Amino acid sequence: MINKVGIELPEHIEGYGDIIPYQGPFAIKPVGDKAPVKQSFFFPGQTKLLSTIEDAIKTSGLKSGMTISFHHHLRDGDGVMIQVVEAISKLGIKDIHINSSSFTNAHEGILEYIKSGVITKISTSGLRGKMAEEISKTGILPHPIVFRTHGGRVRAIEAGDVKIDVAFVGAPACDKMGNMNGHEGPCAFGAMGYPMTDVCYANVVVALTDNLQPYPLKDISIDQTHIDYVVVVESLGDPAKIASGATRISTNPSELFLAKKAANVLIASGLIQNGFSFQAGAGGAALAVCRYLREYMEENSIKGSFASGGINAYLVELLEAGLFDILVDVQTFDGTIADSVKRNPNHIEMSASMYANPHNKSCIAHELDIMILSATEIDVNFNVNSLTGSHGMIMGAIGGAPDTAAGAKWTVMVVPAMRKRLPIIVDKVTHVVTPNETVDVLVTDMGICVHPQRQDIKDILLANNIPIMDIKDLYKKVTKLTGIPKKIEYTDKIVGIVEYRDGTVLDIIRQIKT
Amino acid sequence: MINKVGIELPEHIEGYGDIIPYQGPFAIKPVGDKAPVKQSFFFPGQTKLLSTIEDAIKTSGLKSGMTISFHHHLRDGDGVMIQVVEAISKLGIKDIHINSSSFTNAHEGILEYIKSGVITKISTSGLRGKMAEEISKTGILPHPIVFRTHGGRVRAIEAGDVKIDVAFVGAPACDKMGNMNGHEGPCAFGAMGYPMTDVCYANVVVALTDNLQPYPLKDISIDQTHIDYVVVVESLGDPAKIASGATRISTNPSELFLAKKAANVLIASGLIQNGFSFQAGAGGAALAVCRYLREYMEENSIKGSFASGGINAYLVELLEAGLFDILVDVQTFDGTIADSVKRNPNHIEMSASMYANPHNKSCIAHELDIMILSATEIDVNFNVNSLTGSHGMIMGAIGGAPDTAAGAKWTVMVVPAMRKRLPIIVDKVTHVVTPNETVDVLVTDMGICVHPQRQDIKDILLANNIPIMDIKDLYKKVTKLTGIPKKIEYTDKIVGIVEYRDGTVLDIIRQIKT
Repeated sequence: MINKVGIELPEHIEGYGDIIPYQGPFAIKPVGDKAPVKQSFFFPGQTKLLSTIEDAIKTSGLKSGMTISFHHHLRDGDGVMIQVVEAISKLGIKDIHINSSSFTNAHEGILEYIKSGVITKISTSGLRGKMAEEISKTGILPHPIVFRTHGGRVRAIEAGDVKIDVAFVGAPACDKMGNMNGHEGPCAFGAMGYPMTDVCYANVVVALTDNLQPYPLKDISIDQTHIDYVVVVESLGDPAKIASGATRISTNPSELFLAKKAANVLIASGLIQNGFSFQAGAGGAALAVCRYLREYMEENSIKGSFASGGINAYLVELLEAGLFDILVDVQTFDGTIADSVKRNPNHIEMSASMYANPHNKSCIAHELDIMILSATEIDVNFNVNSLTGSHGMIMGAIGGAPDTAAGAKWTVMVVPAMRKRLPIIVDKVTHVVTPNETVDVLVTDMGICVHPQRQDIKDILLANNIPIMDIKDLYKKVTKLTGIPKKIEYTDKIVGIVEYRDGTVLDIIRQIKT
Repeated sequence: MINKVGIELPEHIEGYGDIIPYQGPFAIKPVGDKAPVKQSFFFPGQTKLLSTIEDAIKTSGLKSGMTISFHHHLRDGDGVMIQVVEAISKLGIKDIHINSSSFTNAHEGILEYIKSGVITKISTSGLRGKMAEEISKTGILPHPIVFRTHGGRVRAIEAGDVKIDVAFVGAPACDKMGNMNGHEGPCAFGAMGYPMTDVCYANVVVALTDNLQPYPLKDISIDQTHIDYVVVVESLGDPAKIASGATRISTNPSELFLAKKAANVLIASGLIQNGFSFQAGAGGAALAVCRYLREYMEENSIKGSFASGGINAYLVELLEAGLFDILVDVQTFDGTIADSVKRNPNHIEMSASMYANPHNKSCIAHELDIMILSATEIDVNFNVNSLTGSHGMIMGAIGGAPDTAAGAKWTVMVVPAMRKRLPIIVDKVTHVVTPNETVDVLVTDMGICVHPQRQDIKDILLANNIPIMDIKDLYKKVTKLTGIPKKIEYTDKIVGIVEYRDGTVLDIIRQIKT
């Protein structure tokens, strides 16, 4: 069968199940009930404290074949997942499915446990580095990786598409009953939006902390009613690595040129006025756009209502400068601002469901005026890829891009037309991650294009003397310089499945022929 | 059949269902899943704002025979329930079950709608005044009232014993998507712990506000993922009536005498040391106990960890004086301290589930060192009544008493031995609300008694030269002065059912023969 972005899909994939093809961004309306949740019981005087992760795993009842979950707020500094998987391995448990909000460089060590059969399945919003390369090339993981958006992940948990047997939550501050927050302690990372849904639906929830606080914790992000066990560990990881280079403002002149063009488009949109809302993905160019927007806002005394998403240090600066009323934060991108949630009453934490879940009673992503996104590729049909490279290998993340693209009034892609002689504007993206109907404008250093269905945007840009071009012409212009990369060859083995946020399938990723 | 507190119960009650008899405070361990929750869907650009309560009721799909829920944080000032029921009546909807966290004097007007058949069933933690009297005497309500504790109410919702079709939440501050808090705006009441479970399990949730704030609200107690519709009304009620006389410190000399005796018992307990936790019910004597405890704490430089429960102005004073680390608040008792949750970072809000739910992964009530309670009656078996008077009429509330009594290390009843020539110490309470196994000490102006199973407490008190007496002797001493009130006569009609917090039945209340 062929889905709405023209991808040919099998009816069924072993290790995944039957496939529902993507049918458009809001085509699926969920029916029926959310996943069932087990009832609990807790005596007065009972304790949740266990001495070791191994004890917690044994007590949790984790068995081979089960699913465990993690969150990636500690980013490149995360030491939680590896400690838990090590302990699982020691106990002789195998065939485990890891469902994590994402994988980072901190998780390369998991590859070893894939090789030894401890981990046989992964669900995530992204995967990079050596592990991604090995899975893409050798198909070493027995089951295909299921890639979900941040909103799609919590939707899947709530809908029961994923049943978490044991959720592990890294808690930078935690008391003996499991009341916790993410913004106090040696491994403070800030907002802890991702596990908020896990703890509601997992059969067993284990909190790991390196900072046990007196009961009850004063500032609670996830409360004791959701936690089964608390384990004090030496460390949750390396807080210095929570800040990632991907969140610093660019000084690269061509990125700044591109950002300036994007800012001009946004200014022309007429959306940048008092009370506007805004989100930008990670990456230097997106941040540079913020810099130019700031200038415009200051010159014209404009104050935005909210900026959302992963929150970086620059957005905290904008908040503290009074340029936005509020930051709504699912994940703080930078360890240096981990305390901002505490320090700034206007910097608030939200769950991943409040951020981006397409099947709840409303999410922030659906209230955005402007979303700025980057990509690894965008094609002449406006389909976007941010997960794989043009070599076909997994090397990125879906994140919240498809969620916010679907929700925002203007979704603006800001990408260079080529990178290192590779065209970013392509005939057909290697894999579709954000579907074309949800992408409105493409700003590149070689031209600006508007989705054919957004005549309103074309009119606005032209009225503001911003030249636009047909994306097919841009493609020709780019590939004249870069040439057309040769087609990638794949084996039949499916190594990844790209789910749209509503649980339908956008694309499948096959093993590369090497 | 006869339950563990010796009450004869029918197997089945029409309008309630099959009865599970009370079997002890922790005899019931829940099995299976929590109640199912419907999936949802919300488009970008969709609005939740409806113009009138009637519109919201129509849009919600409310029909005759359904269940609606309310919370009573606005106490005697609540104008929400009556506005909603008026609108329901206007729409010709009948046979409605109201499940509210409690009924107050503000709800007397509901009697009219009982008479007209709009309201045919009530579930609550308490009922007073004219409506209670009329139901007790005439049996005017077609179905028996189900009385539940604050913990038992959320347990019942989570377990699916109660299915809420439409929950109405009074929101003193609210934005267009339903992000809300209880501590900002003209009708600010403070913590909003009761509806937190309702909004998770109700099919439809309607927020009513008289203070629509820009989106998104900065300080969120219940977030938009749980709210279907928002209606702006002229007023949520009368904020001046949120403060209730029941929460002021007594100046009555005999109450102070009693309070002093209770404080001496607590001091002797050895529990009053750094890090102790504490809760006291409403009522002048309980508050007076706090005053004496404060003196002792100040003299001995003792700082408690937390005080919990309904939080009154005096506890805020203790917090601000540094005598407790933290206040954990499900319901702020006094409008004058509605902003304390905001002003004091150590005054935090908790859900009713975190407060007292016996079937979750732990609650604050189970972590209490000391609980001080009042009662309308206590009998020679230590069973306690706080719901009905010795005349058999409903006139009080269960509240969180059975929850905290079950959880606290020492549960201390502080009551006068008689009130207006009526014995408070009786042979057999009119109705059992808090079962004897969960009550440890009884302090009266005519003597102190200890539950026979708490030899440890007897030893401690005697070692501290605090005289104790057998409760049967106290009973004789009291009734020598008061005489023994004549037995109440009842009809066969059941007007109320007293559920224990675990969903079993403690007692049934029959219509009084008049």
